[in-house]
Amino acid sequence: MINHFCKEPLWECHNALAEVALGKRPADTVIRHARLVSVTTHEILDDTDIAISHGRVAYLGIGGHTAEHCVGPDTRVVDATGLYAVPGLMDSHIHIESSMVGPSEYARAVVPHGTTGIYADPHEVANVRGLEGVRVMWEDAARTPLKTMLTTPSCVPAVLGVEDTGSSIDASQVAQTMTWDQTVALGEMMNFPGILSGEENATGEVAETLKADKVVTGHYVSPDDDRGLNAYISAGVSSCHESGTFDDVIAKLRMGMYAQLRQGSAWLNLPGYLPQLVESGIDTRLCLLCTDDSHPHTIVDDGHMDRVLRTAVSLGLDPVTAIQMCTINCATYFGVGQDMGSITPGKCADVVLMDDLKDFRARYVWIDGDLVARDGRALFEVEPFPWPDFMTHTMELGDTLTPQAFEFPVDRQDGRCKVRAMGITPGDTITHDIIVDVPVRDGKLQADGENDVLKVCVFDRHHGSAGTHSRGFAKGFGIHGALAQTVSHDAHNLLVMGDNDADMLLAAKTLEECGGGEVAVQDGRVLALVELPVCGLMSTERVEVVSRKVSAIEAAWRQMGCTLPSPFMTMGVMSLACVPELRLTNRGYVNCVSFKMESLLAE
Amino acid sequence: MINHFCKEPLWECHNALAEVALGKRPADTVIRHARLVSVTTHEILDDTDIAISHGRVAYLGIGGHTAEHCVGPDTRVVDATGLYAVPGLMDSHIHIESSMVGPSEYARAVVPHGTTGIYADPHEVANVRGLEGVRVMWEDAARTPLKTMLTTPSCVPAVLGVEDTGSSIDASQVAQTMTWDQTVALGEMMNFPGILSGEENATGEVAETLKADKVVTGHYVSPDDDRGLNAYISAGVSSCHESGTFDDVIAKLRMGMYAQLRQGSAWLNLPGYLPQLVESGIDTRLCLLCTDDSHPHTIVDDGHMDRVLRTAVSLGLDPVTAIQMCTINCATYFGVGQDMGSITPGKCADVVLMDDLKDFRARYVWIDGDLVARDGRALFEVEPFPWPDFMTHTMELGDTLTPQAFEFPVDRQDGRCKVRAMGITPGDTITHDIIVDVPVRDGKLQADGENDVLKVCVFDRHHGSAGTHSRGFAKGFGIHGALAQTVSHDAHNLLVMGDNDADMLLAAKTLEECGGGEVAVQDGRVLALVELPVCGLMSTERVEVVSRKVSAIEAAWRQMGCTLPSPFMTMGVMSLACVPELRLTNRGYVNCVSFKMESLLAE
Repeated sequence: MINHFCKEPLWECHNALAEVALGKRPADTVIRHARLVSVTTHEILDDTDIAISHGRVAYLGIGGHTAEHCVGPDTRVVDATGLYAVPGLMDSHIHIESSMVGPSEYARAVVPHGTTGIYADPHEVANVRGLEGVRVMWEDAARTPLKTMLTTPSCVPAVLGVEDTGSSIDASQVAQTMTWDQTVALGEMMNFPGILSGEENATGEVAETLKADKVVTGHYVSPDDDRGLNAYISAGVSSCHESGTFDDVIAKLRMGMYAQLRQGSAWLNLPGYLPQLVESGIDTRLCLLCTDDSHPHTIVDDGHMDRVLRTAVSLGLDPVTAIQMCTINCATYFGVGQDMGSITPGKCADVVLMDDLKDFRARYVWIDGDLVARDGRALFEVEPFPWPDFMTHTMELGDTLTPQAFEFPVDRQDGRCKVRAMGITPGDTITHDIIVDVPVRDGKLQADGENDVLKVCVFDRHHGSAGTHSRGFAKGFGIHGALAQTVSHDAHNLLVMGDNDADMLLAAKTLEECGGGEVAVQDGRVLALVELPVCGLMSTERVEVVSRKVSAIEAAWRQMGCTLPSPFMTMGVMSLACVPELRLTNRGYVNCVSFKMESLLAE
Repeated sequence: MINHFCKEPLWECHNALAEVALGKRPADTVIRHARLVSVTTHEILDDTDIAISHGRVAYLGIGGHTAEHCVGPDTRVVDATGLYAVPGLMDSHIHIESSMVGPSEYARAVVPHGTTGIYADPHEVANVRGLEGVRVMWEDAARTPLKTMLTTPSCVPAVLGVEDTGSSIDASQVAQTMTWDQTVALGEMMNFPGILSGEENATGEVAETLKADKVVTGHYVSPDDDRGLNAYISAGVSSCHESGTFDDVIAKLRMGMYAQLRQGSAWLNLPGYLPQLVESGIDTRLCLLCTDDSHPHTIVDDGHMDRVLRTAVSLGLDPVTAIQMCTINCATYFGVGQDMGSITPGKCADVVLMDDLKDFRARYVWIDGDLVARDGRALFEVEPFPWPDFMTHTMELGDTLTPQAFEFPVDRQDGRCKVRAMGITPGDTITHDIIVDVPVRDGKLQADGENDVLKVCVFDRHHGSAGTHSRGFAKGFGIHGALAQTVSHDAHNLLVMGDNDADMLLAAKTLEECGGGEVAVQDGRVLALVELPVCGLMSTERVEVVSRKVSAIEAAWRQMGCTLPSPFMTMGVMSLACVPELRLTNRGYVNCVSFKMESLLAE
């Protein structure tokens, strides 16, 4: 694939590079005496010199050869004695939106950790604002040196016919994005049932991607690692980040599928299979590393791909092998290996100098030969992005947020009534389809705070007054008060939950006013608020600020009585109609095993 | 890269494959109980089933799972108990012309050895008949199942300005071929001095190839493994088959260049570096295997890529690693890894069943799901190819072949005279620039058979009566009689050598008459003849027949007094103006160090 993420294509500067290598013209930068991590041979080459020109590596001085002949009066010479030179790290699957900041701020946050390229699937924004929203995101991304490669969202909406989203993407739109310079792949094809059943749009998206000579990334969560997985791969899906066990991983690798080994913020999969992978001694060329989701506090406190490498090595993986998984393996998979993935002549000069291969702290980071970070600090400044109005005005609720919207009228006598509810599982995304009984008062179903049964409402925030909203119950959060959020996978409608209508209304109104985000309300008072005005998903503030605000929300959850780990995440997937067992979308309850709608009343 | 070497593109049959995997539709072929060589994980997976449909692998039954559910009434089931299933073998660099047969006969000869794909550089034919000749060759190739992938000849002629060829190829023509379905790469860029000096056509060809998103294969024979090699790689050349030592190989791999490890007929490089490579324990993902040249007797007596694997394993290389080098590594390099290189779902069903991983004898060979060879016999018949006249009438000598053409008139008194001669080195391609003295009789220089000094003439056979011819001497062949051949790298002019004019004339006339080839003449009698009427390079007969005729020529050489190993090869490169030290082209002597013309007379 022709790669557009470089300063100049190789064919425009190849003669100049050869001249630099031969000493006929000076390099822009020369890194001297580095311990080069050779991902092509799986070696560490002590005392290696690297000469850079036109944003690319022009010369490698190995085994006693030096790059002295490439140094001119204006050449910047960096002494890397004692430092490891590692190819720029790449995250093979990431949703920028999970960081709650926009692409340029994301870049400012992760580049100092040695990340030089990401394969990003903007499916959250796509659900809200479609391809136009994606295009705008990439305008922001283009303002930074981070190679933000687009994998076109494939499942917008995630599941057809059970909810209302702000936008949708079909096969013809996928085909259109495949002509964009920034597109390298199709984003995670979560609709594996659609692939297995030959559903027209899902398989059409795969076909359009393959026709464009790009790869289809996957998301396969079925327990069927035999026929189903074979079918999914035969159908053209060539990678997957959803592996829980070594058996999952090895099944995929043996079938020629790239296994994206994930260590995100919420899903920490490496411990589940990496020790066995190491012990197996198999070839790891099809293994990639990824984070999938990196929350703001993870990035601020622990880093990005450096953090994943630290974890991998702490679990026994050889550091050079680990580095291969987020450099050469990754570039090879996405078809950009001719330009990226190793520090070798002709390749883009994406280079990280690190103190060691245990902590992986980046001391210097170059992208396309430009020094872009030093000692944990980005050297590029990012001005606030002028988000267009349609990206920051996405709370299209019309006049729906009235006190009546939070009432649950029912044709029953006062007393108690059996209703369906989502039973929460601590620390897991699964919800159980349970029956609870709740009070009926004045012909309306009530929350039952004493028994930990909360009311839940989901408001279509994309269609104004014409939008619908739904009513349901959840058991297991254990709070008094109300919470609301617009980070509500994948339609990102307005999700409100509470034990009383007044706090629910206030929470909803608060988010409507600030353009979306997360809010905690108790006894008529806003305890904490994270404003996410860009599509109701991303802040316009610095990631450090967002991280602090998210911590405040977490504190509010605890203060309100919740003892769940990551309750915000648990709440955020309560509408995600592709994960079992019972979910509430703006259209009502969805049984996520049968994919049929369910009634609220259970009697 | 979109690969055109398949029965159907994946996007047209992916739903059908998924249905086969799920048991909803029967497979065409099911291979049962194989020991699968998994090149993705570097494992051998006992008792694996493989279901094939639409020419592709639809399902792999591993670890107790079977493909029984893919078997229908018309499914062909093959019991592979005890056999290894190996991905189809690929030769990463090969000149078909060296086999002295055309592409379809070549396919018939090598496919039964497990070869399913070749990356062929037709630069011999290109020197004679240009791109039109290449196009016709690929018409013949397309009649067989062998995936004959074109690497466009880059150096036609090999060296500019020192000889006359039948055709030439420039950067704009390279660009044109890059749009052809069959083209996967640029053929070996032998003009490394041109690359290093920024010569316009050589670097232009590289640029056109990179622009077309294809790879540039190399041929780097300089001893400079530091600056020169860096420059060559920086300039965009990404593979090389010219390595003599482990130091050469490791230097390339560390610089990110694919090293094509060669075991051909003439150049047997594996013993020179493979033991050290094994011992080093480095990652071998950038190592490929190739033959470069496979002579007819090599193919007939020893095989093709199976032979290379045998040699590699006998030198200590792990068999699965060796197989990776001619399957997945190769497909990855050439950008066809989405379709070839492993036996995994969705990939082309190029499968070889072998008895063991030591002899690598192929028992069954499938290409795109069709059984194409069984127990050493091709199952496809190849009708003789109707070569167009312009391919079989390439002895364009006009009226040049007269007795006078073989006389060496000189403005000297009768007696003896010092002349320049090519000093032959037994078993090596190098020739020394030496001075010998030869008799002068009737104002003409004479051969000096007693002192092993032969006359040599090179006739431009591409330009009819307008063509020039040259005169020189060679010392070291030790024959009485004359030899002539049109396999005369790379211009493939008519090369005639002998100790008397009459035999030389007969030899030349014999080849003119039969359209080219090789001939041995003694005392007015043709001792042996290999007719190669297609471009003077390839036979229209079976490879077994050609092999016998080549053996007869070799016997004639010995009978005529020659004790050199492979004298035909030594003679065949006597005009190759890119190898030191002194060569004779149709324009005269070329000093291949200074690249200047030299005089015949040395006094």
